[in-house]
Amino acid sequence: MSQPYTPTPRTRVVREAERAVYDREAAYRILDEGFLCHVGFVTDGQPFVIPTSYGRKDASLYIHGSAASRMLRQMKDGVPICVTVTLLDGLVLARSIFNHSMNYRSVVILGKATLVDDPKEKLEALRLLSEHILPGRWSDSRQPNERELKATSVLRLPIEEFSAKVRQGPVVDDEEDYSFPTWAGVVPLEVKTGEPIDDARLLPGQSVPAYARHYSRGK
Amino acid sequence: MSQPYTPTPRTRVVREAERAVYDREAAYRILDEGFLCHVGFVTDGQPFVIPTSYGRKDASLYIHGSAASRMLRQMKDGVPICVTVTLLDGLVLARSIFNHSMNYRSVVILGKATLVDDPKEKLEALRLLSEHILPGRWSDSRQPNERELKATSVLRLPIEEFSAKVRQGPVVDDEEDYSFPTWAGVVPLEVKTGEPIDDARLLPGQSVPAYARHYSRGK
Repeated sequence: MSQPYTPTPRTRVVREAERAVYDREAAYRILDEGFLCHVGFVTDGQPFVIPTSYGRKDASLYIHGSAASRMLRQMKDGVPICVTVTLLDGLVLARSIFNHSMNYRSVVILGKATLVDDPKEKLEALRLLSEHILPGRWSDSRQPNERELKATSVLRLPIEEFSAKVRQGPVVDDEEDYSFPTWAGVVPLEVKTGEPIDDARLLPGQSVPAYARHYSRGK
Repeated sequence: MSQPYTPTPRTRVVREAERAVYDREAAYRILDEGFLCHVGFVTDGQPFVIPTSYGRKDASLYIHGSAASRMLRQMKDGVPICVTVTLLDGLVLARSIFNHSMNYRSVVILGKATLVDDPKEKLEALRLLSEHILPGRWSDSRQPNERELKATSVLRLPIEEFSAKVRQGPVVDDEEDYSFPTWAGVVPLEVKTGEPIDDARLLPGQSVPAYARHYSRGK
C-alpha cells in the first residue's frame, strides 16, 4: 500500500509538474528496477557527479566503495548529497522539434549519508547491494574476508526527502502541428542482456547459472 | 588524432587509476555514444543531480531546457557544474564478491556553463542536440518558432577540465580464488531499440523513417 508523501520546497517538481510522482511505492519501483545511480557531492564549492551501484531496503539506500575513494571519504562526513536514478524508456518524436521528448522514470533523493559501522549491518548491506544487482549471486560467490570488509565502506542514505518524475506514453503535439507532414511516434529503448561470456579460467563443469543467463531488470 | 590532456588535481582519477583515460578523443567517443547526462549543481550547499540530454561540437557540450527550469536558471549564472555521462557495458561476475565489478565507460566534466545568447548559435546548438540524439530528425520536424526559442535556454559547457574512466574486459580474481568452484564471467548489457510505435494521429502515408527503425548508438 502506498504511503503518502509530501515534497519539500527542494524536492517539489517545478517544471512539467504533471510528471511529478510523490508516491513512495512508485519511487521504490524505479529504484528497484535500476541499479546504477549518480551521486552528487560538493568539494570546495565544486559539485561532483559519480556513477555507482546501489541497493535498497525499505527506506534505506545503500552505496559502497573503496574506503580510500574521494567520494566515500567526502560523504561519510555527513555532508549533503544527492542520489539520482534514471531509467530511459524511449525517444518521443513529435512533429515539432519543440515537443520532442523522452520517456523516462527518475528519482532524486536528497540527504546526508552515514557510514554503516556495525559489522553485521555492513555485511548485510553488501549482500543487499549484490542481490539488488543480481539476485542469486551472493551465495554462489566467495564471501568477503576481514581484509576486504575493511577496505570497503558502506554508506546508508535515508530515503526521506525525494521526488520522482515520470514521462510515459505517446507524442503530445500542439493541435496545429498534427497536419505537419512527418512521421511521429515513440522509439522504445531498453537495456538488454547479451550472451554471458565464460571466464577463460573456469573450473571444469561450471556452466552459466540461470540468474546470469536470464538476467533482466523487471518491468 | 588524439590531443594530449593533463588532468587537474580535481579530475585526476584517484581510485583504480589504471582505469583512467585522459585522452580527449576517447572522452569524445564516450560522449558521442551517449546522449543522457547527469548534471550536478549546488543550491544553498545542497547538490542536485538532474538527468538531461546533451549534444557536442568539438570542445563544447550543449544542454538545453525550459528557460523557467530551476536547473537552467541556476546554471546560467556561471556557477560551477559537473556533467557526467555513463555507459554501462556489463556485469562482471568474479569468484569473490569483492572482485565483482561492472564494465562501463564514463566521462566527468567540471566547469561553468554560459548561456548561448546569439540567436544563430542557439538554433545551431539546438540542431546539434537533436542530431546528436537522433541523426536525421531535425530536418523532418517542424522547426522552432520565435515563442519556442524564447521559452528554451541553451547552455554551453567547455570540455576543458574532464576525466574519463573505463573498465572493460574479463573478470580479475585474486590468484587463490581461481580454484573456488563457481561460474565466473561477464554478462554484457546494451541499450536496444524496440519496434517504433506509430502515433495515433499520423497523416496517411507516413511510415517509420530509417533513422527511427534502425536506431542504435554506434560502438
